Amino acid sequence: MPKKIRLGILGGGGDSLIGVLHRVASHINDNYQITGAVFNPDFKENMDFAKEIDVPTDRIYVDFDTFIEEEMKLPKEERIQVCSVLTPNFLHFPMAKKLLDNGFHVICEKPMTTTYDEAKILQDAHQKAGTVFAVTHTYTGYPMVRQMREMIKDGALGKIHKVDARYYQGWINEIIHDQEKRSTVWRLDPAKAGISSCIGDIGVHAFNLIEYTTGLQIKSILCDFNYLYEDNKMDVDGTTLIRMSEHVKGVIRASQVATGEENGLAIAIYGEKGSFRWEQERPNFLYKMSDTEPTQVYKPGHAYNSKLSLDGTKLPAGHPEGIFDSMANIYLGVARAIRGEDYNDGEFPTIVDGVRGLNFIESTVASHKSGNTWIDLD
Amino acid sequence: MPKKIRLGILGGGGDSLIGVLHRVASHINDNYQITGAVFNPDFKENMDFAKEIDVPTDRIYVDFDTFIEEEMKLPKEERIQVCSVLTPNFLHFPMAKKLLDNGFHVICEKPMTTTYDEAKILQDAHQKAGTVFAVTHTYTGYPMVRQMREMIKDGALGKIHKVDARYYQGWINEIIHDQEKRSTVWRLDPAKAGISSCIGDIGVHAFNLIEYTTGLQIKSILCDFNYLYEDNKMDVDGTTLIRMSEHVKGVIRASQVATGEENGLAIAIYGEKGSFRWEQERPNFLYKMSDTEPTQVYKPGHAYNSKLSLDGTKLPAGHPEGIFDSMANIYLGVARAIRGEDYNDGEFPTIVDGVRGLNFIESTVASHKSGNTWIDLD
Amino acid sequence: MPKKIRLGILGGGGDSLIGVLHRVASHINDNYQITGAVFNPDFKENMDFAKEIDVPTDRIYVDFDTFIEEEMKLPKEERIQVCSVLTPNFLHFPMAKKLLDNGFHVICEKPMTTTYDEAKILQDAHQKAGTVFAVTHTYTGYPMVRQMREMIKDGALGKIHKVDARYYQGWINEIIHDQEKRSTVWRLDPAKAGISSCIGDIGVHAFNLIEYTTGLQIKSILCDFNYLYEDNKMDVDGTTLIRMSEHVKGVIRASQVATGEENGLAIAIYGEKGSFRWEQERPNFLYKMSDTEPTQVYKPGHAYNSKLSLDGTKLPAGHPEGIFDSMANIYLGVARAIRGEDYNDGEFPTIVDGVRGLNFIESTVASHKSGNTWIDLD
Amino acid sequence: MPKKIRLGILGGGGDSLIGVLHRVASHINDNYQITGAVFNPDFKENMDFAKEIDVPTDRIYVDFDTFIEEEMKLPKEERIQVCSVLTPNFLHFPMAKKLLDNGFHVICEKPMTTTYDEAKILQDAHQKAGTVFAVTHTYTGYPMVRQMREMIKDGALGKIHKVDARYYQGWINEIIHDQEKRSTVWRLDPAKAGISSCIGDIGVHAFNLIEYTTGLQIKSILCDFNYLYEDNKMDVDGTTLIRMSEHVKGVIRASQVATGEENGLAIAIYGEKGSFRWEQERPNFLYKMSDTEPTQVYKPGHAYNSKLSLDGTKLPAGHPEGIFDSMANIYLGVARAIRGEDYNDGEFPTIVDGVRGLNFIESTVASHKSGNTWIDLD
Repeated sequence: MPKKIRLGILGGGGDSLIGVLHRVASHINDNYQITGAVFNPDFKENMDFAKEIDVPTDRIYVDFDTFIEEEMKLPKEERIQVCSVLTPNFLHFPMAKKLLDNGFHVICEKPMTTTYDEAKILQDAHQKAGTVFAVTHTYTGYPMVRQMREMIKDGALGKIHKVDARYYQGWINEIIHDQEKRSTVWRLDPAKAGISSCIGDIGVHAFNLIEYTTGLQIKSILCDFNYLYEDNKMDVDGTTLIRMSEHVKGVIRASQVATGEENGLAIAIYGEKGSFRWEQERPNFLYKMSDTEPTQVYKPGHAYNSKLSLDGTKLPAGHPEGIFDSMANIYLGVARAIRGEDYNDGEFPTIVDGVRGLNFIESTVASHKSGNTWIDLD
Repeated sequence: MPKKIRLGILGGGGDSLIGVLHRVASHINDNYQITGAVFNPDFKENMDFAKEIDVPTDRIYVDFDTFIEEEMKLPKEERIQVCSVLTPNFLHFPMAKKLLDNGFHVICEKPMTTTYDEAKILQDAHQKAGTVFAVTHTYTGYPMVRQMREMIKDGALGKIHKVDARYYQGWINEIIHDQEKRSTVWRLDPAKAGISSCIGDIGVHAFNLIEYTTGLQIKSILCDFNYLYEDNKMDVDGTTLIRMSEHVKGVIRASQVATGEENGLAIAIYGEKGSFRWEQERPNFLYKMSDTEPTQVYKPGHAYNSKLSLDGTKLPAGHPEGIFDSMANIYLGVARAIRGEDYNDGEFPTIVDGVRGLNFIESTVASHKSGNTWIDLD
Repeated sequence: MPKKIRLGILGGGGDSLIGVLHRVASHINDNYQITGAVFNPDFKENMDFAKEIDVPTDRIYVDFDTFIEEEMKLPKEERIQVCSVLTPNFLHFPMAKKLLDNGFHVICEKPMTTTYDEAKILQDAHQKAGTVFAVTHTYTGYPMVRQMREMIKDGALGKIHKVDARYYQGWINEIIHDQEKRSTVWRLDPAKAGISSCIGDIGVHAFNLIEYTTGLQIKSILCDFNYLYEDNKMDVDGTTLIRMSEHVKGVIRASQVATGEENGLAIAIYGEKGSFRWEQERPNFLYKMSDTEPTQVYKPGHAYNSKLSLDGTKLPAGHPEGIFDSMANIYLGVARAIRGEDYNDGEFPTIVDGVRGLNFIESTVASHKSGNTWIDLD
Repeated sequence: MPKKIRLGILGGGGDSLIGVLHRVASHINDNYQITGAVFNPDFKENMDFAKEIDVPTDRIYVDFDTFIEEEMKLPKEERIQVCSVLTPNFLHFPMAKKLLDNGFHVICEKPMTTTYDEAKILQDAHQKAGTVFAVTHTYTGYPMVRQMREMIKDGALGKIHKVDARYYQGWINEIIHDQEKRSTVWRLDPAKAGISSCIGDIGVHAFNLIEYTTGLQIKSILCDFNYLYEDNKMDVDGTTLIRMSEHVKGVIRASQVATGEENGLAIAIYGEKGSFRWEQERPNFLYKMSDTEPTQVYKPGHAYNSKLSLDGTKLPAGHPEGIFDSMANIYLGVARAIRGEDYNDGEFPTIVDGVRGLNFIESTVASHKSGNTWIDLD
């Protein structure tokens, strides 16, 4: 009997959107029970929120260290099994590290750490711990993204020779064009937000989506940022030329000043025999193109889809599932891994994805600062 | 503190899709706890399923009558508060009736009953009970459907003069074209499935969507069914001319043999000053048209939306929410009503919608059988 | 050598949009030379227009009777061969009749005549004349419309069981909602405009599109008009139930008050094995659907298209051709017929389409006026 | 009276697609008469083609030099006024040069010349000649492209800070992946096709579209080509980072190996106050976006459009016009210029666009070959 997995939550309290996303996703397939949490650094708010969402308050802790200390005192069959790390970015590393060191499974928001060095340390810790570690590149949970991955693996496109991914948003416009706001907001302060805004926040999703779907590794990159204003030192827009090899190339376009764009993640993958186009805002439509045949529109829930894709669909074709369902698919994969059940490669992004993401982010910054030269990824 | 509402589930066990839909929806906003159930007429399967989804087995009952009997013995503060009726259609009426008579709130799948007479009896029972009663016309929970309703109420279209709604599916093709299958399947056996297949199952959603969004009542209808085969006696396709008044008219098109259509519910509403177009399979795009201005594309999560619409969106614009989220919005409205909180008309379909639905279904059958004459709705 | 065909034009002078459409279409494939005309009843305007568009003025005639008289005096190898009739509707019949009686080929705008009786007389005259007669149901010239026809003929959809066609426009709103305007405009005056506005002007195109693409004949219809106002006596909106046989049915929806719709002709054809969807405003995208396979998007210019479709495309795939090109394809077919070259059934709508159109228009009026009863077409 | 302009054609005979495009476009607005030509280097084919399309054969010349010689003997009022140069690329320069030197107006296919040096020489010649010179960047004739230009000029987007243009085709796949074909085809032989395939043929259109719509000049570029195979020396794919200034940046993506793409020219322009998105394959839909308002869909033919846009639409909204109509709009502008009538800046691309195009093409090659460094445009 698949008794529910005991889930701890770090961060994500109050109005936190990422908190809603993870909480709902954890419920969707009846696999998790929120058993303990530090939703909020303020203990009163922490407790109030627990009451509001009806989580028992006896395992709401005053802070993360107490969380670890108290949970470790519990017998293993009562202890929280997996912890979702939803705190501000700079806390991901120390929390995930300590969780791994104490034998917890971890679901970590992205970016996994704030530096590539931290990421590599975490990878070592994970290797020692041997627990399950997932990074929530949420978009990999969409059935049609999984379908691309599986069909490409099966050779549907032949040799891939070009990839074009985009992640365009416009929400930072209202900040960046206001001198007062742009000089005070934490997101544009490198001391608080890390070395990158646009690539670190969204560009890295596009990077991951390419590697997830194509199975190819990006070998080197050349990047040009746009800061928009002399007094702004964080990238709010960046275009990155990418090379998988001398004759397999592409581009990653990312922007937070793409006015009117909402959450415009999209990918196009071109191979010798065919190609795919997919957009996050219409996640249930996957276009398979060829030079000689009519374009085919794949949709979730049909028997023609791969097992990995069908596994991520709960209702028959034509009943739109969305981003909560996509995240829920990742939680489902993690649940299977925790339980030691069979699961497929591709059911959730791993620490390797996290490490590569940080490698990519730092490389774009290095490329831009060097006058737009090519930087090799590890 | 909004302590979770105690929810009972009748039906929806095992692989039931409607079971998944309700269960997930009940979880999404942290308002409900599944406290008891009769998931399945077979007690062993019932118990197994409860264990599988981790519902405590002490309130899994052997049958519905026991459910009522045992729950009524519990003190009110422990007793199940609201019950979701997900059983086969012919059981909706007796179960909902008994639930109301015993003071439970009810969330009832659609069609609410199998006959218009039953529906009216239920309405009386509801009036006596004074509890909350919702019929799950799931599509009314979509933010953009709510946006239509609110903008129309505010006069955005002026006087409405034409409505065109469609619900096209193709799934019955594989049954209807096979003589063996079509003569044996329960869905096409009037004795088991009630008087209507296409209108009863999906046409009624289109009917409800019109009345929900426009605020207008359909006064009379003329309907033509297509049975496709001489030996089939259930409508698998039907077109219904509708009249709200002598000069406000429209059409409802429904089909289960619209080959290749998945779940094609759509509506177009034309008024003196403007119009709306919306499709269920792209639920987050609402088109507002006019004769003289560029078409406007409304999307969820933007500040320009109405309160009722925004209330049904959890994440920022561009993060697609889907049908589970739509149903969750209905559950949220019901939770507010049960708790006696403020809620808006339109947060969930009521017993009145259920009654009108049955009135509509029976009228289409009467119209078709009379040689396609006009039938007045009550 | 395909020496250009000598084309006469009746009507279509000045700012006439239909004049532009025919003139451009006649030029596109280098087949026609405008040799003579009565563009306008006012002779000065007639001559001025001829000079403006550089048509030699020596064969610009004072009126239609003179046109016939003078042209008949010319030797056959100089005489105008084919005449495009673009005059107000009530003139189509007498002009087309006289042209046929004098041995001219005719390209006639639609509706071919103002009554079904006239249409039948014209059909007799045509039979005697033995010349080429085309009715300009322009939309049949689109490559993707032709592709539907050919694939259906080849059995791609199996047995068709349902058809749904729509022609929605909104332009009459600005007239109909203004009491002054609606009582004075000629289009809503039955004495001037004939018995039908909405069906006669646009509904008949949808009717023709169904018969053209499916190869099926509509046997009987039941229609409900909407006049919108008590003092208006012309249909500005009408929904028509159609039957091809007892088990093959459909609907034609037409409106001139579908606010915000521009020129919304569309068709969906459902068969046992597959279905088609096509919209006039995106004419180069044809969707072929099935219950079990991904939807396929056909586009013009690809080798996978039929000969009839490819014949109507001048440039490679991805170079959008539009409505002028569609009409040009009809002119091309007529040119081939006039020259006695091989051409395919389907290259242009014939007098039979014109006759059936009038039969349909009169039947919808009869059905509505009889209280929405079924009327058989001949 | 606008007597038709005497048009000469160089090249474009037989099955030439570019020949069809120009010939039809010249007819569409009744402004041009094809008066003379050298359609083909083979005189017999030249004459046969003239007869086939019914051009008088007395001014079909044996070669270009004879064309000039004989036409110059004619009195000015009979002489060809404007000449369309549709020959292979390497002939554009010498022909255009001689035409200008002899006082002809010129409509020149693109690329205007094969080198930037030639382009500058031609510009000098044009300055001396003082005649009309148009380069056929066909896409600038689309009404919605013109609408972008006019609205941007009027400040609809505020300060532009990002531009993203794409031109993706897939047709070269069938050549490039076949070693035999790719080593023999003239298009991939630098000696015959010039220095660039992908940028020269299509990338330059995207470049022009950016400058045409935004009114901004691209100041410097960094480009990376993909040759796909070691033994191929022509770019079949290239991504170009562009800078209009330090804080106004963008990207041009061009490919001939984007499998399944047909003629995928598209542009997105992001400004402080709003943005535009437009795609060539759906030319009649222009999306204006903002961070706070619903997206607006502009379509041709509506009164809300600019004069320049409306001037390029012949029929009411909803009647799709296509690429022939777009080219016809350019021919219309040229006709007005030749006649000395008023016309707007933007009605046709000028020699300046041609010169800048060559500057761009050569710069991308220089950038790629230098190891992807920034190159300034003049």
